[in-house]
This record gives sequence, structure tokens and C-alpha cells, in this order.
Amino acid sequence: MLLTGFEATRPRYELSQARSLDWLAAVHTESEATRASLGADDKAIFATRMARMIGRCACAPDKIASRGHSVRDVELGGWDGNEIYDVRRDPHGAGTAARSRLFGELVDAYFEETYATASAPDDLVHVTCTGYAAPSGAQQLVARRGWPTRVTHAYHMGCYAAVPVIRLAVGMSSLGSRRVDIVHTELCSLHLDPADHRIEQLVVQSLFGDGLIRYSLVPNAPHGLSLLALHEQLVPDTAGAMRWIAGDHGMQMTLARDVPEQIGAVLRTFVIELYRRAGVELGHMRDSVFAVHPGGPRIIDGVQQTLELSDGQVAASRAVLHDHGNMSSATLPHVWMVLDQTLAPGTLIASLAFGPGLTVCGALFEKR
Amino acid sequence: MLLTGFEATRPRYELSQARSLDWLAAVHTESEATRASLGADDKAIFATRMARMIGRCACAPDKIASRGHSVRDVELGGWDGNEIYDVRRDPHGAGTAARSRLFGELVDAYFEETYATASAPDDLVHVTCTGYAAPSGAQQLVARRGWPTRVTHAYHMGCYAAVPVIRLAVGMSSLGSRRVDIVHTELCSLHLDPADHRIEQLVVQSLFGDGLIRYSLVPNAPHGLSLLALHEQLVPDTAGAMRWIAGDHGMQMTLARDVPEQIGAVLRTFVIELYRRAGVELGHMRDSVFAVHPGGPRIIDGVQQTLELSDGQVAASRAVLHDHGNMSSATLPHVWMVLDQTLAPGTLIASLAFGPGLTVCGALFEKR
Repeated sequence: MLLTGFEATRPRYELSQARSLDWLAAVHTESEATRASLGADDKAIFATRMARMIGRCACAPDKIASRGHSVRDVELGGWDGNEIYDVRRDPHGAGTAARSRLFGELVDAYFEETYATASAPDDLVHVTCTGYAAPSGAQQLVARRGWPTRVTHAYHMGCYAAVPVIRLAVGMSSLGSRRVDIVHTELCSLHLDPADHRIEQLVVQSLFGDGLIRYSLVPNAPHGLSLLALHEQLVPDTAGAMRWIAGDHGMQMTLARDVPEQIGAVLRTFVIELYRRAGVELGHMRDSVFAVHPGGPRIIDGVQQTLELSDGQVAASRAVLHDHGNMSSATLPHVWMVLDQTLAPGTLIASLAFGPGLTVCGALFEKR
Repeated sequence: MLLTGFEATRPRYELSQARSLDWLAAVHTESEATRASLGADDKAIFATRMARMIGRCACAPDKIASRGHSVRDVELGGWDGNEIYDVRRDPHGAGTAARSRLFGELVDAYFEETYATASAPDDLVHVTCTGYAAPSGAQQLVARRGWPTRVTHAYHMGCYAAVPVIRLAVGMSSLGSRRVDIVHTELCSLHLDPADHRIEQLVVQSLFGDGLIRYSLVPNAPHGLSLLALHEQLVPDTAGAMRWIAGDHGMQMTLARDVPEQIGAVLRTFVIELYRRAGVELGHMRDSVFAVHPGGPRIIDGVQQTLELSDGQVAASRAVLHDHGNMSSATLPHVWMVLDQTLAPGTLIASLAFGPGLTVCGALFEKR
């Protein structure tokens, strides 16, 4: 089975990381000014402090150059009449209902756009952890077109979702589906809480960007990534390391600092099992390219170090993080798209993804 | 492939429908009293009006005898210090964050309880549309036990989810999984908004109950339901008929009155295709038992009429609705459990489920 036909769509608004971090400092300051009714002097002091904190803990522009956003507010940069980050009214911004509605509208429009000229797949798997609105954009597209396509929601798995979704798609194809389309719509920019000034939240809010991508699983195609093996594992005693939960003002994330180390502890054993499942000798790790979910710069550094990989082996993962930030489950497919366009046929691709659980997921491909 | 090993767990609190409707009238009244600062006289007038509206539009105790609840507040019946329906503080009750937290705690405890003596499945599919908290109870169970089990979230599909989930499970088993466990945790009682007094909401709030059930898909077992065919379809031009969207105070449902008619319009063609896929002559509809998702009494009536079924053919569906209410995606598995315990081997079982999209799903089984 081959993954092929990668088509990414850029979100509506693209912000340089420098400008995005300025906005982040400004929205946190404006939120605090509302919450604590700050006067001009106190507000200026808070702004300076916030800029300093973000300068120290946020993902810097040398690691992430720009990120896609879907909320108009961020592009406009003002505060009155914002659709989500109306922090002069509520320091947290809009409630979950408004965020879900906007998600629904944007995702509905995206499905219509990305399928403007595309034909009906047998199965359409919609993947997201950043918006729960049914009927989904996928369902509405299929109903509007009168397609016989089956729609499946693979929601709320988090950053690692691309791997289990391939497993589901391979299952569908073994039941007779000739083309399974997989569509990720991750609108992370809908889920900031500007009233939560903790370091951990500033890191998260400087890291995630929006990503929209679709691709297909088919038996044959002129080029693509041929699937050799899949592997998934939950890491014991790490349940508290990462949480993703429906909250009052969008989704809430918690993220422990030691996630890279907790993943690192099981990584070698995990990769050995992945190659074993594919029947590929472990020595081929050396000439494999690694598509690592770039949760953040430290994740890639950690994987590179633990598995003793060269810079070149993780270059595509670092480049996608640099160009777009962490786009949750849409990130790894963006890396696959780059590798499908650039690698020589025959190259092995080891894919690794991580998310709540902690869950570690892997796929081994050969570029065709 | 066989569905077998059905094990339902009753939610913590069981309320007779009569008592539950009394509570519904009371919580709406208390909510309105808070919102509009009603005096004793106006509150009494509102209470009378609300009781009359519920008496007229709600699902009556002859159709639903009792429903399971998970929120302690409903059992206690008071108003101060409630965990979710603290309507003296906020007419809507608690925000989504508190509801998600409670869902997480209850579902975590449920997984521990229902797997107290059970062994590890190869795959564990967690199905819900009433709580989004990761790591999920399923992930936490597997991580705690150190099982090699793969966990998949099949979230936010709605009432029809049991059918596509079988499709996913069959796919997993075709990839080598010897036992796929499917676990539904639908805690509908977490998602009431007592400040929304519209007729449509009173209907919904009188209809849904909580349901927790697990079962397995295996190649062989001493008894169970053998899968003959699956079929799924989106009905064009019905996107607005039913919505399920993450809101500020839990999930929000909208439900049009003509859903039974919209489903009825495609039902005959749908069922013909289901039997065709199984290679079973349509004449066997007459000696099939129908496991119809009992969305409400009118759904069963409509299906019975459209397909010209006898009372006996839909008796199990009506009985599950009567005993427990609409438990969203957990309902159909409860009907299957009853049929697995009571039907003679060889009996055909046609299963039909409906949900947002509108989506119509079907499965044809033979009792073994």
C-alpha cells in the first residue's frame, strides 16, 4: 500500500514567528489588563515582563520562522470586536462554543476547496483534535456531492494520530476500499488562553500552528511512500506528562518539561521492534531518513541524540518545524509530502510520532 | 467474525423516568430563578409552566421507565454545591472543563472496573461522543497494565458510531488482531443545559441516558453475532437536521422534528442494499429481528412502519429504550447483548443506526 497525492493547503493567515511572538505578548498583556483592571503604568510593566518571559521560554524565530493561523484577530492585531481573542470583554477570549463554530465554518470551506476537482474516494477519514462539530466538513462534503463515500472520524488522538490512522486506512483497504483519503484539519490557533501566563502555556502557544493536508492510501501510484510496517506503544507511568482536554475556552493542553526524556527512555527498543516488524535489518537505520514528529526543537534533538542520527537524517523534520511550527497530527504528513517530493526511490523512511498517553507511534516506509 | 462477550455496566445512579422528569422541571425552574432573579410567586408560576411543557413534550414513563445518570447532583436533588448542575451559581451549570474532568474520572474508574479480571486484547477501540479527555481511560488502563494493546479513539460520531466501529474492528482483525475490544462510554447526563428551555431541548433532555458497555470482535466464540454485511450512507440535504458540537457548557445538540421522516425517505433502498451485500434474499426480512437504534419512540415507530415490521421484530429495541433511554452509541450494543442472550441460533439480525450527517448505518448479523 502506498501513501500518495499529498496536498497541503496553507491556513488563511501566515505570521512570521517574530510578529507572532509580539502578538502573543500583547494579547497576554491586554488579557491581564482586563482581568486585573491595570492602569497604563502597570500595564506597561506587565508588557515588559511578558516580553521578557516569552523571549526566554518561547520557541525562537531561528527554530520556527512562521506559523499559519486561522483566526482573523491575529492578523488584525486589534482588540475590539475580535471573533475569538476579544480579551477586553473576557480575558480568556471566546468560549468553546464560538471556537467550535468557527472551526466548523473554516473546515467546511476547506473541504469544499480541497475537493474542488477531486473525485469521490471510497473512504474518507477525517483527523483532528482541534474541533468537534458534527456534521463535520467531511460529512457535509460527501452529502452535498451525493457520494457513496464512507466518512470516519478519527478525533482526539493528538499529535500522533497520523500513524494509527494509516492502520485504520490499511484495514479499510483490506476490506475492499480502493482509495482511502485521509484529511487532517488541525486549527491549533483556535485554542489559546491568553489569561494563562504560565511558562508551560507560553511554550505551547509559541509552538503550535495550523495545518491542513490531505493524501490517499492506494494499492498503486506513480510515486509515494510504500508502507512496510507499523508499531504503536503506550509508555507506562507517563499519563500525567501530556493532557489534552475539552475546556471552557477551547481545548486545554498540559505539557511536562521531561517529555523528550520520557520518550527517549523507550525509543531504541521501539525502533528495533519497528524494523523487526518490517523484516528490515537494523543496520539500515544508518541509510534511513527519519520523519520525526517535530513536537518542538527539543524533541528532534532528543530523538537524534538517542538514535545517533546525523543532521541530514532529520533535516526534513526540522525544516517542517521551521517553516510551519507544530501542526499537531498534520505535521508528520507535511514531512512525508516533502520526502515524497525529494527522496530517491528506494530510500527507507522511519516515521516517529508522539502524543498523549504517552503514546509512541511508528511507521516504516520505502520511497517509491 | 463474531461479536461476543457483551458486558454492560450500569451507571452510578438510576432514576425512574417519573422522578427524572420531576428533577428536569425543578432544575430548569431553579436555573430560570437564578437567571431572572425570580421571586417566590414568579418561580411557582414558572415551575407550573415547565411541568406542563415537560408533561406535553417529554418522553413519558410508559416509553422510558428509567435512565442511568452519572452526576451525583441528580441523585441528591439539591442545588447548593452541586458538581455540575450548580444552577444557583450559573443558570447553565458548570462549564465544559468541569464536565470533561468528571467524564475523565468516571471513565477512568469504569475501565479499571470492567477490566478487573479481563486479559489484554490486541486492539482496544474507545467509542464516545460525550467526553474528550486525553489520555483516555482506555489509554490509562493499557499503560497501567503495561499491555501491548493498541488503543484507538473513535470519537464524535454520535449515535450511529457502533456500526463504523465494527468496520474499523474488522479491518484490524484482517491485519492480524485476534481480539478487538470495543468499549462505549456515553455519559449523556453530563451535557444538559438547564437554561435552555426550548421544547427541542426538553425532548433531548428527557430522552438520553448514560450507557457503558464493552464487547469483543473475534474469529470464533461459543456464541455471538456473526457479521454478514455492513453498509453506511450519508443522506443528502439533511446536514441541519441534527448537530452535535462542543459548547461552553458541555456538548450542544440540535434535533429537528422531521428526523424520522428524513430517515424514512431512504430506509427501504438502504435495507435492500444491506441484504444484497450480505447475499441474503430480501424475503428473509420477514424472519429477521431488527435491532433499531432507538433514538426515540418515533424513530422505532417510523422504521417499523416504513419497513412493515411486526411488533415482535422491533421488541428488543423498544425494550432497551424502555429500560435505559437513548444511550447514544452504546444503545445498539445493548440491543445486541439482549439478542445474543435470547435469540435462537440462525436468526438474522438487521441493525440500523442513525446520527448526525444525517448518517444511516446498517449491519446484518446471524445469531450463532
